[in-house]
This record gives sequence, structure tokens and C-alpha cells, in this order.
Amino acid sequence: MTIAAESGTGNTDVAADVPQGAREDSQPPVSPEVSFDRKPESYRHWKLRADGPVAWLEMDVDEHGGVVPGYDMKLNSYDLGVDIELYDAVQRLRFEHPEVRSVVLTSAKENVFCAGANIRMLAGSPHEWKVNFCKFTNETRNGMEDATENSGQTYIAAVNGPCAGGGYELALACDQILLVDDNSSTVALPEVPLLGVLPGTGGLTRVVDKRRVRKDLADVFATRSDGVKGKTAVEWRLVDDIVPRRDFHDTVQRRALEAAESSSRPASGEGIELTPLQREVSDSGIAYRHVRAEFDRSRSLATITVTGPDKVPADMAEVHRQGAGNWLLAMTRELDDLILRLRTNETELGTWVITTEGDLKKVLAHEKVIFDAASQDWLSNEIVHYYKRTLKRLDVTSRSIIALIEPGSCFAGVLFELALAADRQYILDGPPIDDEDSEQRAEVRLSDANFGVLPMGNGLSRLASRFYGDGDHQEWLRREKDRALSPGEVNELGLVTDAPDDIDWEDEVRLIVEARKSLSPDALTGMEANHRFVGPETLETKIFGRLTAWQNWVFNRPNASGPEGALRRYGTGQKAVFDRKRV
Amino acid sequence: MTIAAESGTGNTDVAADVPQGAREDSQPPVSPEVSFDRKPESYRHWKLRADGPVAWLEMDVDEHGGVVPGYDMKLNSYDLGVDIELYDAVQRLRFEHPEVRSVVLTSAKENVFCAGANIRMLAGSPHEWKVNFCKFTNETRNGMEDATENSGQTYIAAVNGPCAGGGYELALACDQILLVDDNSSTVALPEVPLLGVLPGTGGLTRVVDKRRVRKDLADVFATRSDGVKGKTAVEWRLVDDIVPRRDFHDTVQRRALEAAESSSRPASGEGIELTPLQREVSDSGIAYRHVRAEFDRSRSLATITVTGPDKVPADMAEVHRQGAGNWLLAMTRELDDLILRLRTNETELGTWVITTEGDLKKVLAHEKVIFDAASQDWLSNEIVHYYKRTLKRLDVTSRSIIALIEPGSCFAGVLFELALAADRQYILDGPPIDDEDSEQRAEVRLSDANFGVLPMGNGLSRLASRFYGDGDHQEWLRREKDRALSPGEVNELGLVTDAPDDIDWEDEVRLIVEARKSLSPDALTGMEANHRFVGPETLETKIFGRLTAWQNWVFNRPNASGPEGALRRYGTGQKAVFDRKRV
Repeated sequence: MTIAAESGTGNTDVAADVPQGAREDSQPPVSPEVSFDRKPESYRHWKLRADGPVAWLEMDVDEHGGVVPGYDMKLNSYDLGVDIELYDAVQRLRFEHPEVRSVVLTSAKENVFCAGANIRMLAGSPHEWKVNFCKFTNETRNGMEDATENSGQTYIAAVNGPCAGGGYELALACDQILLVDDNSSTVALPEVPLLGVLPGTGGLTRVVDKRRVRKDLADVFATRSDGVKGKTAVEWRLVDDIVPRRDFHDTVQRRALEAAESSSRPASGEGIELTPLQREVSDSGIAYRHVRAEFDRSRSLATITVTGPDKVPADMAEVHRQGAGNWLLAMTRELDDLILRLRTNETELGTWVITTEGDLKKVLAHEKVIFDAASQDWLSNEIVHYYKRTLKRLDVTSRSIIALIEPGSCFAGVLFELALAADRQYILDGPPIDDEDSEQRAEVRLSDANFGVLPMGNGLSRLASRFYGDGDHQEWLRREKDRALSPGEVNELGLVTDAPDDIDWEDEVRLIVEARKSLSPDALTGMEANHRFVGPETLETKIFGRLTAWQNWVFNRPNASGPEGALRRYGTGQKAVFDRKRV
Repeated sequence: MTIAAESGTGNTDVAADVPQGAREDSQPPVSPEVSFDRKPESYRHWKLRADGPVAWLEMDVDEHGGVVPGYDMKLNSYDLGVDIELYDAVQRLRFEHPEVRSVVLTSAKENVFCAGANIRMLAGSPHEWKVNFCKFTNETRNGMEDATENSGQTYIAAVNGPCAGGGYELALACDQILLVDDNSSTVALPEVPLLGVLPGTGGLTRVVDKRRVRKDLADVFATRSDGVKGKTAVEWRLVDDIVPRRDFHDTVQRRALEAAESSSRPASGEGIELTPLQREVSDSGIAYRHVRAEFDRSRSLATITVTGPDKVPADMAEVHRQGAGNWLLAMTRELDDLILRLRTNETELGTWVITTEGDLKKVLAHEKVIFDAASQDWLSNEIVHYYKRTLKRLDVTSRSIIALIEPGSCFAGVLFELALAADRQYILDGPPIDDEDSEQRAEVRLSDANFGVLPMGNGLSRLASRFYGDGDHQEWLRREKDRALSPGEVNELGLVTDAPDDIDWEDEVRLIVEARKSLSPDALTGMEANHRFVGPETLETKIFGRLTAWQNWVFNRPNASGPEGALRRYGTGQKAVFDRKRV
């Protein structure tokens, strides 16, 4: 079955009011508004075909389909728009194709697998665009590994031509890498020698930590622009196997079928269609069905409100019938989309306040139907892991996040994770601000969802990270599950930063938001990235915490991005001029 | 016994030919040559007094004693020169004072503990100076923790006045923090709110990972400039105890004596005097007794040669008699000094080639006398841990390091760790280059020293890092201990990157050095930092790998270091102007 084939269908990535060609050579004056809506029927850069248990995901980048104007994407090089389609495909494979148990990622072009991120795009992008682009591409690659690990959809890179930089990093995110043995196809990380920057999508980390390439060989590999091929690539562990071209397709197919056979996914079943998201966008906010964001630009503030469920499905059969209409799935999709849009399109809204509204008991009842079935029902499993990934996006978002817990809110179980992901949490210890005679008080409820099924990138639950090393306290919290916790109790349990009363509440919230705005956005980003991830490190936290920080630094240095830097000089015929001082 | 008291003695930090006042307000035109030679008798900024099992290390910064001209160091703020003295004191306590089992770190000034790194110094320093300064100060603080953990010298911070930024980070490196309870003394990390940079000496990491302060409280703490005092400081775990001023000295002394009682160090014993290092410095190199470096500025190259021991001590009694003359201790001190001088004074020598010369068997015999006694003999223990720390300096040095193993070299045991610390290793498979008829061949010998007693910052030996996750290979290597390994065997065992023969050797080495010079120094630094530390992360690797990279990035951003940035505007009365885009 061919899900998508045509390319060249109308691309609606870029808001219509951005004039084509208005961009200068080096810096787009205003970043265009980016949409993350995609559907396979109108993919411009990928072909997705499901063939029983095996899906084929073929990269076929339209040179002229850049998400912003100003560059051609030759040799299957990619930009944010290409990666948005990849993300869409990875998501749809999980929800729409329960029968797919392995995914072959390959190129539809004759002479190249993928040349990596488009260099003209990188060289011409402002710093925040480059960093945001790298973050999203990293999340998508982590998502492929998550599908392999948690959904029985094993990704196999069929590298049928030269594969460089981000192209090889895409392959690294797959469970297996098969390289065509044709005396010319290589894998390479040429960023350091050609561009004076680092491989920005986890390459350095995955080479040594995931594939366990020896550090001296990794050093040779990452400093030569021509890459490695053939037996050496296997010996160095850069690829799993080399295969002659005449056997390539059959070998790839056999490997894919083998991987599919050992999968835990059902052999058949009906998928859930990820129907188009409905949203209203204005200059003052974005509103979805269960999620809305209101902007206060004068305070650099976005207030995000998540609404709890109206109803509770009786069982998973009902959840299957609801499909994309199920509250937890729909809310997650909306929140995911909102995070991506705010990160990309609203870089000056530096503080996100998170609130909720609804019935705490319904949240817990709803999550229970889904979470209890996760080990038997593929859809339940997908919803849980998708919500987990969306929370992880929050964890690595470079915005200050403040959760406000007021009467009428529903921070219970899955939704309380939003508060725990925040940098700070405040609960109102008193009646609603606009109704001082009301008996209503804020409350919080913990559930099993808070104790390990939604881990952060460091492998710990947000509660275990919050009370790192304090097992006794974690045990105490476990005993407080499934009951209403009052503001006083929530405060005593250390679940919030403070519990101001109704007289102080508005002033305190105002001061927090104002104080945040007065601080250096860069220092906040660095501080938050360090505070959020205590304890153990993983491939993921290394990629976001260590590699990303180094890459940000390198991107920002004149040796890369200055007028004589390697990134700016690439392809001009002029050599880069370096300040040779080691820092 | 007062070891040092006078301040104001001649400061020879700065080479005499650097004109005073030649520095512009913002950037010293040429960084002065820095020496790391110090002795307690002429400390300018510290008082060191050993009182039986307790040593008192009092900070008393001479305002006018900056290591470079251009700033006053008020309120016990510090610069590199102050920290060089601290490093000297920490080292001497370990070698010269076996009887000292706890160290009280406090201030000799009336109204302040320590205001942190001097801001004028930071604001006026070039990027590479700031980063190198932070690296050295981090290493010294890690060294204090190493003394507490491995030498039974427990550091106690007696915070007898306000304590901010680097001052609090100094306290964080101690095992206990006691804060005077006088209604005005606070601990604070005001870098983010006041300077728009991060606490650069491990503060963010130690607050959440070592002291396990909750991330939301850490966020509040690190975003308010006025700090935290009294009971709140204890409740948030920022300090261990608060003590009224009238009881402060007695309580501190009691705590220090209690810590001393549980120490593994001998109650008495004769120390080893760390006699002045002898070196010859010229524009073309530095030569010590057992270590020398030759500079080839046209190739951005320093060739470091370590000479093996002439003789083997019969037992530890002889090592004690040799004192600072013992080969392993002397060589370590020289190598340590060389690393520090090259990092600080020779930032354009981006590639370090490491070679050795001497008798492999003597290296192993020498190390065996010392390493075998480490559990019983305090001096043996100190030499092993000092060599470990010096190797760790190499691991975090932002230079490309290449080890060359030729006939006549002595890469055995402890010295083979130098090769393993390198980014690449090459062994000559053939006769010496200048004597093709010779029968002599290069060899390598492994010993127990390569299997865990000299761990990297990630907690793994360099061999376990090199063959990360491959336990079988590590077992194989264990079986090859204590015998001569030929170039072919060394190559087969994966201990070197390549083993060129005598025909190719010189060309290959030349090409490697030339290639390195052609690459962006920044990209190399980021790449090497990522390749060198596979596997688990620790406080140390987080500080050097993650926090440092973020700090480098923040330092480099206009929001900190630009003309309107917070670091440059601090103290001018003008508010910083921020680009509010979140990155």
C-alpha cells in the first residue's frame, strides 16, 4: 500500500505573508511562522509505504521545497520542513499502523542516502533557529529509538549511497545500519573538518556511547571529511554490515522481516487515524480543543491551560472507538503541537505559566483505563509513550516554566507531571481569587502515573528527580496516592515551591513573572538545563545537556559563524580563518 | 604552628616584562605569563595554620594583589592568583602534613566570607582566560573533595560572613558547611540575576546533585541576588547548620575534631616537603628534570617527553627518604606544572604530542613499590592520587593530544595511562627512525595501574572507557599484563590507533599534526570533550562536560559579554540590555 507518493503538492509551511526573497544572504530578518501539520498524502520529501509488517520510509528531498526561502536542498540534504515530515511519519507509523513491526529508512535517490542538514540553511540561520532546529531533529531521532525500544517498531537504516553528517546521524538513530558495499558509498561526520561545527544531532554521543566505537577511531572518523567505507566501517563498528549492491534490497528486506518477527506488536489490527488538529491562531494566542495558550507579550509570557476530560471511557474498546478523539491522545497532540509552535515561532515568550482546569477524579479515572492496559493493548501503550515524549519535550524546552495550582484546576496523575516538569510550582492556599466566599480549594492527587511510567530523559520519574536520593520521601509520597491533598499537605510534602494565600497570591505571581523577565534569557536557559536533570545521565541527557551545550558554544564562535568562519565560508572557495587560541 | 602569615611579600606571578597598566579596560592585549610556583611563607591571600589534626585555611585576599593588573579584589573576591595559592595549600596539606585530618576553610576578614570570583577581572578577561580560570578553579575544588574522600582530610567550610557566587561554590566543595547565624550572613549564587552568567565553579551541579536541593528551590536560590540565610538555608539543604556567632569558633573546632577522629590518616608522621620545582623556560620550550616540552610554533605543536626513572626504590622507606626527589612524585609535579603553564600561557599550541623515554621494566618496578603500599602508607596513597588527578587534568585539557610510541620509549603501566589519555595513539612498527639497522623495537607493558586505580572523572579506568561495554576485551587485556607487547600485538589489542612502519612513520605523523592544525580549534575542543567521556556521568563529568559547556556558551553571548551585556554593565549603574529571544 502506498500511503504517500506525490511530491510537489502545495507546501503550506510558511505563512503567506512572508515575502519570498525578503531574506538577506546571512540572516532572515524575521523567522517565518512554521506549522507542524503534515499528512503523508502531501509529503514533499518522503515516501511512506507499508508492506505488511515492514514499512519503507524513503527520503526523497525536493530541492526547491525549503521551509524558508534562500537555499536549495541538494543530495537529500534537509531542513526543518523535511524533518517535520519525518516526525509526522514516525508518529503515524505508531498510531496508524499497528501491523508495522519494522521500518526501513532509506533513500529514494540514486546516488546518495543523505547529505545531512542543509549547510546554506545553517549558515544563513540566526542562532536561535539553528539551536531549535537541532533540538527538534534530536527529539525525532530519540523518538525513532523510542519506537524501536517501546513499540516493537525496529528502525533499520538501509544506507544505499553516501551518507554524511546529519545523514549518518539519522542512521545512528536506527537499531541497525546496513551500508551498500560499492566502493564509493561512505558514512561520514564531516562537520568538524568542513564546517568547523560539531555533528549536532547526537552523532558524537551515539558513536562512542551507543555504537561503542573506540574514542581514537571516533576521533579519526570525525576529523576526516571523506568518511569510512567497506570493511573498515564494520571493523570500527560504524555500521553493522556491508552488503553488495546486487544483494542490498533482499538483505535489507530479510533483516526487516527478521526484526518484525521478534516484535511485540500485534500482527494485525486497526490503526487510529491522526486526524488534522483544529486550532485558532491569533496574535494573542492559540486555542485547541483541550489546550489553549494566551500571550502577554509585554510580560514575555504565555499562559498555557490544559482542560481535563469531560468523560471517562468505559474500557479500551471505547478508547479505540474514540481514536484521535480520546481526551488523553487529543490533549497530548495539542500540547505537543503547541510546544513546537511556541518554541519555533514565539522565541520572545520566555516564561510559560501552566495551569489546568477540570475534574481531578475524571483525570485519574480516564488515565487509569489507558495506563492499566499498557502492557496488553498497543494503542494504550502508544498513548502512554506519546505523553511521555511530550513531557520530555517540556523538560528540554528553553523557557522558564511555572505551574500555578488554583481552585478548579485538575493537577492529578498525568496532569500533575506538567507541574513537576515546571521549574517552580505554586498552589493557592485559599478560596478562588475572584470568589472569596467560595468553599472551593485547590487540590492535587498523585497516582501510579507519577511513579515511573513517565520517566524523564535521565531514566527517573519526575518525583524521583525532585527528591533525588531521598528514598524515604518517595515512599511517603507513594502512600499518599489517590487521595485529595490540600494546599497545606502539598506544601508539606515538598510538591510545590510555595503555597501563598489568597491575599498574597496575585502579587507573588506577578513578581515571579516580572523577575523572570528581568533576567538574562541565556543564563536562564543554562541554569534551567542544569537544574532539571539531576542524578544519572543517559544517551538522551548527554545529547541535550552536554553535546547541545558544546554545539551552541561552537555555533556562536567566530571560528564557525564569524564572517571568516568555516560555516560561512563553506562552498565559497575561500578557506576559513581561525583564531587559533584554544579555549 | 603558623605555616604562613605574612602577606605583601613579593608577588612573582606576572612576568616582569608585562608593563603595569598596559591593559585596556576591557581586554588585556596580551595575557601575561603565569607561574604556578607558590610557598606558604609568601602567600599573599591565605593564611595556613596547622594545629595538630586540624588545619585552618583562612582567606584574606590582598585587594591589590591581582595576578594581572586592572582590578582590585575587594571583599575576599578572587582571581587566578588567589586560586593558585589555594591549590598550593591543598597540595601541601596532603604531602607536608600527614597529621592533618580535617581542614577548616574560613575567612580572616571581619565582614565577609568570600564574594566569589572578581567581577572586574571576569568582565575584562578574554574568553579563553575566563574558561581556563574556571577550569583550574574547578579542578582545585574537585581536589578538595578528593582529599576528603581519599586522604582522610575532611574540608569544613566555616562561613563566618556573607558568601556569594564562587564563595559559596568554594563552600560547596567542602564536606560540611556551617553558616554563622547573625541575621545578615547569607549564602548566595547571584550570577544569573546580577551578571547574566552561570555560577562557573560547579555551583548548579553541586546544589542539586551533591547537596540534593530540590530543583524548584535551587531555581529560587539561583535567581535571587540576596541569597538565603538562617533556618531557610538549612531547610533547603544549602548549609548543614547555622551557629550563633558567639558559639561559632567552638562549634567549628568541635566539628573539625570530630571529623579528624574518624579519619584514616596517621595521627602523626613526617611530611614530605614539596621543594621548589627546577625548570628552564625559553621561547622554544620548558625543561624540567623528568619532563620537557619543545614548542614548534609554526605547527601549533608542543612535544612533551616524559623520562622514566633511573632507579627503583627498594621499599616505601626509601621513597619516604627520597621525598620530593622520588621519580613518580617529581615527574607528576613537573607534568602537573607543565600542563597548567601550557594551558594558561600557550593557548595557540593546540596539539600536544606525548612521548616517553626510558626503561619500561624500571617504570613498572618503581610503580609497584608505591602502588602496592597505597592501602597502608599515607605517602604512597598521596602519590597515587596525585598522579590520578594529574591524568584527569589531561582528560579535560582543551588540546588535541597524540601519543607516539617509538623504540626507546617506556609506555608501561602508569606511563601508558598518558597514551590512553590521548585522543590518538600511534606505535612505530619497525626500527628507530634514525637507525634502521637497529634490532630495537617499540613495546608497551600493561600493569595493575591500568585497571582501575587511576580512574577518569567518569569513574572508569581509561581502558574500561576505551573498550566501554566490552567486558570480554577488558578480560583479555588483563591476561596480557606484565609482559612486553610488540607493536603488532599492541595494534591487535586495540591499544593504538595505528602502527605505521618505519617507511611511513614520519609522513604519517606529519600529516596528523598538519591536519589537526587545519581544523577549527573550537570544534576540536567540543569534539574531544564529547569523545573522551563515554559511559556513566558523575559530578565531575557533569561539571566539566555539561556545566562548563553551558557556561562557555553563556559567556560568549552578547547578553553577558556584549557592550550592553550584564557582565560588562555590572557596577556601572546602567542596566543590561538583553536580546529576549530564547535559544
